[in-house]
Amino acid sequence: MTNSKLSEEKVFKDPVHRYIHVRDKVIWDLIGTKEFQRLRRIRQLGTTYLTFHGAEHSRFNHSLGVYEIVRRIVDDVFKGRKEWNDDDRLLCLCAALLHDLGHGPFSHSFEKVFHLDHEDFTRAIILGETEVNAVLRTVGADFAKKVAEVIAKTYENKQVISLISSQIDADRMDYLQRDAYYTGVSYGHFDMERILRVMRPREDQVVIKSSGMHAVEDYIMSRYQMYWQVYFHPVTRSAEVILTKILHRAKQLYKEKYSFKHHPLHFYSLFEDKVDVKDYLKLDESIMFYYFQAWQEEEDIILNDLCSRFINRDLFKFVEFNPNEQMMTLLQLNKLFKQAGIDPDYYLVIDSSSDLPYDFYRPGEEEERLPIHLLKANGEIRELSRESEIVDAISGKRRTDHKLYYPLDLLEDLSTNSKAKKEILELLNRINRD
Amino acid sequence: MTNSKLSEEKVFKDPVHRYIHVRDKVIWDLIGTKEFQRLRRIRQLGTTYLTFHGAEHSRFNHSLGVYEIVRRIVDDVFKGRKEWNDDDRLLCLCAALLHDLGHGPFSHSFEKVFHLDHEDFTRAIILGETEVNAVLRTVGADFAKKVAEVIAKTYENKQVISLISSQIDADRMDYLQRDAYYTGVSYGHFDMERILRVMRPREDQVVIKSSGMHAVEDYIMSRYQMYWQVYFHPVTRSAEVILTKILHRAKQLYKEKYSFKHHPLHFYSLFEDKVDVKDYLKLDESIMFYYFQAWQEEEDIILNDLCSRFINRDLFKFVEFNPNEQMMTLLQLNKLFKQAGIDPDYYLVIDSSSDLPYDFYRPGEEEERLPIHLLKANGEIRELSRESEIVDAISGKRRTDHKLYYPLDLLEDLSTNSKAKKEILELLNRINRD
Amino acid sequence: MTNSKLSEEKVFKDPVHRYIHVRDKVIWDLIGTKEFQRLRRIRQLGTTYLTFHGAEHSRFNHSLGVYEIVRRIVDDVFKGRKEWNDDDRLLCLCAALLHDLGHGPFSHSFEKVFHLDHEDFTRAIILGETEVNAVLRTVGADFAKKVAEVIAKTYENKQVISLISSQIDADRMDYLQRDAYYTGVSYGHFDMERILRVMRPREDQVVIKSSGMHAVEDYIMSRYQMYWQVYFHPVTRSAEVILTKILHRAKQLYKEKYSFKHHPLHFYSLFEDKVDVKDYLKLDESIMFYYFQAWQEEEDIILNDLCSRFINRDLFKFVEFNPNEQMMTLLQLNKLFKQAGIDPDYYLVIDSSSDLPYDFYRPGEEEERLPIHLLKANGEIRELSRESEIVDAISGKRRTDHKLYYPLDLLEDLSTNSKAKKEILELLNRINRD
Amino acid sequence: MTNSKLSEEKVFKDPVHRYIHVRDKVIWDLIGTKEFQRLRRIRQLGTTYLTFHGAEHSRFNHSLGVYEIVRRIVDDVFKGRKEWNDDDRLLCLCAALLHDLGHGPFSHSFEKVFHLDHEDFTRAIILGETEVNAVLRTVGADFAKKVAEVIAKTYENKQVISLISSQIDADRMDYLQRDAYYTGVSYGHFDMERILRVMRPREDQVVIKSSGMHAVEDYIMSRYQMYWQVYFHPVTRSAEVILTKILHRAKQLYKEKYSFKHHPLHFYSLFEDKVDVKDYLKLDESIMFYYFQAWQEEEDIILNDLCSRFINRDLFKFVEFNPNEQMMTLLQLNKLFKQAGIDPDYYLVIDSSSDLPYDFYRPGEEEERLPIHLLKANGEIRELSRESEIVDAISGKRRTDHKLYYPLDLLEDLSTNSKAKKEILELLNRINRD
Repeated sequence: MTNSKLSEEKVFKDPVHRYIHVRDKVIWDLIGTKEFQRLRRIRQLGTTYLTFHGAEHSRFNHSLGVYEIVRRIVDDVFKGRKEWNDDDRLLCLCAALLHDLGHGPFSHSFEKVFHLDHEDFTRAIILGETEVNAVLRTVGADFAKKVAEVIAKTYENKQVISLISSQIDADRMDYLQRDAYYTGVSYGHFDMERILRVMRPREDQVVIKSSGMHAVEDYIMSRYQMYWQVYFHPVTRSAEVILTKILHRAKQLYKEKYSFKHHPLHFYSLFEDKVDVKDYLKLDESIMFYYFQAWQEEEDIILNDLCSRFINRDLFKFVEFNPNEQMMTLLQLNKLFKQAGIDPDYYLVIDSSSDLPYDFYRPGEEEERLPIHLLKANGEIRELSRESEIVDAISGKRRTDHKLYYPLDLLEDLSTNSKAKKEILELLNRINRD
Repeated sequence: MTNSKLSEEKVFKDPVHRYIHVRDKVIWDLIGTKEFQRLRRIRQLGTTYLTFHGAEHSRFNHSLGVYEIVRRIVDDVFKGRKEWNDDDRLLCLCAALLHDLGHGPFSHSFEKVFHLDHEDFTRAIILGETEVNAVLRTVGADFAKKVAEVIAKTYENKQVISLISSQIDADRMDYLQRDAYYTGVSYGHFDMERILRVMRPREDQVVIKSSGMHAVEDYIMSRYQMYWQVYFHPVTRSAEVILTKILHRAKQLYKEKYSFKHHPLHFYSLFEDKVDVKDYLKLDESIMFYYFQAWQEEEDIILNDLCSRFINRDLFKFVEFNPNEQMMTLLQLNKLFKQAGIDPDYYLVIDSSSDLPYDFYRPGEEEERLPIHLLKANGEIRELSRESEIVDAISGKRRTDHKLYYPLDLLEDLSTNSKAKKEILELLNRINRD
Repeated sequence: MTNSKLSEEKVFKDPVHRYIHVRDKVIWDLIGTKEFQRLRRIRQLGTTYLTFHGAEHSRFNHSLGVYEIVRRIVDDVFKGRKEWNDDDRLLCLCAALLHDLGHGPFSHSFEKVFHLDHEDFTRAIILGETEVNAVLRTVGADFAKKVAEVIAKTYENKQVISLISSQIDADRMDYLQRDAYYTGVSYGHFDMERILRVMRPREDQVVIKSSGMHAVEDYIMSRYQMYWQVYFHPVTRSAEVILTKILHRAKQLYKEKYSFKHHPLHFYSLFEDKVDVKDYLKLDESIMFYYFQAWQEEEDIILNDLCSRFINRDLFKFVEFNPNEQMMTLLQLNKLFKQAGIDPDYYLVIDSSSDLPYDFYRPGEEEERLPIHLLKANGEIRELSRESEIVDAISGKRRTDHKLYYPLDLLEDLSTNSKAKKEILELLNRINRD
Repeated sequence: MTNSKLSEEKVFKDPVHRYIHVRDKVIWDLIGTKEFQRLRRIRQLGTTYLTFHGAEHSRFNHSLGVYEIVRRIVDDVFKGRKEWNDDDRLLCLCAALLHDLGHGPFSHSFEKVFHLDHEDFTRAIILGETEVNAVLRTVGADFAKKVAEVIAKTYENKQVISLISSQIDADRMDYLQRDAYYTGVSYGHFDMERILRVMRPREDQVVIKSSGMHAVEDYIMSRYQMYWQVYFHPVTRSAEVILTKILHRAKQLYKEKYSFKHHPLHFYSLFEDKVDVKDYLKLDESIMFYYFQAWQEEEDIILNDLCSRFINRDLFKFVEFNPNEQMMTLLQLNKLFKQAGIDPDYYLVIDSSSDLPYDFYRPGEEEERLPIHLLKANGEIRELSRESEIVDAISGKRRTDHKLYYPLDLLEDLSTNSKAKKEILELLNRINRD
């Protein structure tokens, strides 16, 4: 394995970690590849910038951050410890840097509509005919394969996987802090420096010295707040609902041989479910915006309206929705929307969010949620929720939230003596009150 | 004049000012217009994100910030003072919010190539058939005209102009702090809260109580550092040089009737020097990126190469250049580039930056640089540099910096026994040493 | 009621709230009184500075902070609301400023040893022949009495009491943030600005709009972490144990007519349980240090040793102690200490800490812990733990912690073949393992 | 030379540097000595807390900070560089930690009145029969001597001295940031992390890579602002004037055999100009406060008044004073004060502050002000003011400020028809106007 060092350390100024340090030539070269530079054109938080205007940062930003956290762990904390094999150092760094490489534009909606998984693309880019692959091959013949294995969580050294994807990994530690920084919310703070200092490599995992338990509690509470205050914010989800419906509509029109004024060239392979890496890499959020702008001039009134809503931030309104009790009302609404000439497939949408703040190990289910283990002074290893009362109190408790989205402006535009209008508004009101 | 209030105050979470408060319906409505939402698709710092990866924030961000600063001044500091006419309150708020409305994508390069001025467009959007104009007209028949006058600095109440554009205005106070926040640099901090508290309306201007002089000194030093450390960073300018050359090349090809694979539809009116507001508003940075990506596939090798450089961040290198002493060398280089088959019009570029950290009043020249005036305890008004030794020391001293940009990779790709290659590299080295 | 305003607002620079604003003459005058200036000589966190060296801030600091928070609530949030009687504004401000006036030096230990209550002294200072009382009387004849009633929680307007002492009052909001700032810990952050903005006066209490629930959750988690990470830190408690024992010893010696080299003049009335306000006000932490330093030269070996420990930070070590299971071991240790010639009354000490992170209302018990109430959009008022899953999970769960303190150095100094030494060390080890 | 390592690294939570890391046993042991713990009872900024209430932090705080900065430089930046002799590492750390050890209580006033120099005491404590000396001797027989040489700036390796005392040393970098943190002012920020990273050991000095020049400019501006905004604040100086006069008065009374109610036992040797280290170490600020409180009851009206002023913060007022033009007025005032029965020796005081923001090298004068040298990319070393326009502009420019302090309250208490009173107030007014 070859690992050339740069003649002089390079640094990036970073608002979250102050500086990001690069000493390995391969890292420097990976950052310079076109596949990695593409991440500058994909926002970290998708449509969140429509709710929190500061959240305009890209996945490029975040990827450097995850790399830097892993670098600090392996270089400042793990190095020299007997339980740690420093041969895996460069592998950790590359996997950290590249873990989000396969993300598409607005990936949340994008993946849902086209049934894609960004991790598949990450691996495909790492292993395919790409600049990234060429750089990785300079390290060793099977190095790219190893990086892909880490992404797939199949790599043999589970410590490496633990650093990149577990319930307290570098990915989460970076995004919580970074997203808090850019949105400006006061959640998202925890003492990462402390957590890093007490991480220890142990057999098949990374554990946390129990003296750092309170910093971990704080991290879990931060995560909880960020999910419900930022990531699942109902206004953000409204924009995502619209985005999803745009993609659905465009695909639908394509299938129906609709004659586009502005042809969806970049989407052909997606619409035909046969996208390849080359096509995929051409996609980014500026391309999406280009189409959305152009499609404001399409004759199809639905596509045109949805695009205009997304571009100009004319979002849907929402009410809380309880699927157990309000399904009948939804069916009624569906019918009334049709009567009023508003297609409910595009304009009456349920969106659900759901999260577990922390989970202990449940054999057989959700196996990817590895629990956090504490290392006690006497060497014993204990699962977090058995030591922390706070974590125990919230552990394993899933919280779910459903909202029903609809275009209030369209409803208000209906003629005032429309019977459907009146009934729709009454039903929505009733849902809201319940 | 009509000024409706919102039934409940709205707030935006902002990472720089914590919260942005909106109580006036007209402000809320202006933010919702499509012309204002367009600012989300134009970066505040153009190509700076290629040097400081955090600097991905938009002009939407900054415009809200300027509004909030002016709001605090007029509502918390000026309100009720006899020298202040509160009738101009709403005018200040609207002008602050809209002052950057006419910015084009990557406006620095854009305006240079197409000989445009964003302030002309700001006024044209305010006065034209736009959603913004419709909202402003709800306040009063001549309100839009007044806002345009403030932008043009011709409005009669000079206090208003002083708030929006002077050497210590809300615009600068917001961007210094905001750009420092997003880039992560440690410059850009000054005690704005203190400065706001000591601003006072006086005849024809806004002055600063002299007890706040040190906060103003700090602000001026911040500004100086931000200019040289961030805004004039040579790597950022390299990207701007390339961007400028892309636009030049595309226009040139259009004039020469080159047959584009990907037609520059959005640029036709620009290339023919007859852009109107409607066309202009369709432009934003996602549109630009769309073309730059597409043009990587053009047959014209220069357009294709420059676009690929911009998209993938393969920038030009640079050496310091002294125009007084090194002009002959530049001419030689020009000749050698041609010999080597590299068009010096696109690949050998001088870029200059120049700034005055602060200027006292110079009658007759640069009249827009109104000096900062201090209000002493005895009521006397004195120009800042007469009171502050630090400011006096740097006042009126223009600093200028010239750099010569070139594509090192292309030069290195020349055949090793090329005579031109050797001479070019020698000359560049010599410039560097001098 | 007279409320003179200062001719010009005065400000204090404060690291936590940035500025503290004073516009009322009575507030300015209260700050200038000798009783209030005395708070500069009493640390906010007692012995905590021996664990967190930054925590050297005084109660003067904190008192200004509480005042400023209440000022923002009443002036920026409550003013003009129909449920709020602005006549109580000045009363709130004065009570906030003065609420800690009666604290003695190292009050936690001090009050325990001498069976005092600082709130009694706060009221006595407010009502007695003091500069504070003289200033309060300028407002109105019964104003001092009203302030004392707020401190005693008997004032008729319960909104006022709610602001000064409830589960989410200005006192707690200031100290959590301030103590986090000075210790440097990363806990203690919550979005106070948000909480203040959503506080609303309602009948007999102050409630929080439910849109601010998550900020309140964050506040409760901060409080929990600060209690266990900072306030109950075992090293801090070790210093407190020693301090308590110094005071006990000095009192004991006084009762026994021990002939002090350095007479405890300032403590006579305390030792005789007949302290009055005048004597009490002479006490502060510099006086205490003076005695502790002097007493390092006393012949009584216990007083002299304990003082030297406190001054030079030679603290006791500790083990976790379980009173239910380890009482027999404690009795054994007690006996062995005596055998070894180490007085267990001073050198073998149990210290217990206990806290409820949040409590809902329990009629009949602990009536002072008023629950936090949320105000829902529909006007309904609901107790916090019924709305917040996180708070519900931890609500009402008391956590208690007992530690056994002892002087390891003294034990190690025992002759190596001392049987007691060996047994003691073994027993302590066993407690630790359990 | 012996350097034992701790079995496990110890950390202190620090609000400025986040954590302070200790790995060397000798550092840990030095922190535990009684001479070092004494620094907890001496404020870093003397009387500044009477102006900026947050500035209650001790020299203990600051000393740990200076140690940590030097540790980062030698361990993270210098280690392994050929120009650096790592044998001096521990010496640097100890000198950094101990550099302020000899400070007395309120040392600025204290040293002036008693003609002492804290550096002499620092060396005396290091070399005397102290716990500190005993710890240092465990490293090697001549180690304490070396540490004392560094303090005296006579140590042969000038790099070490450069780290501890130069125009950009660890001492200044810590105190600027720390004092800004505790006072809460917005000055005092500069990018220390950047400066540390570009420090390089060179022959006989530490230099700064020129790529870090702007961070150094920022540091110099911070220093300038901190001096004039914080350290030389006129209210702080008023308290210092009073303190100085208290000590003068007490000494004078002692010389005159005045019969103290409360004998100045701790001051005897100082009053007789024969203080030794043992006596000196007993002094701290709690002792001073004890006397000042007690002396409020002395019969001498001057001592009693001055002490009461200091304790209760009844400070002197001031006017700007120009010694070149206003000396005659001062002599008149002097005479009038005597007529009014107010002793001008204690109640009419000129205080002067003076600072050079930065100085280049001036052979023969002020030799201790070593200039800052930049290391250019080509290896050349250049003095800072030749490279930085900003620094050149302010370099070598001394700024001086004189103020005249007096007790306005005493003057106002004079009978209204006192001729002296009227004239005094007129003269003070005239000085103010000039």
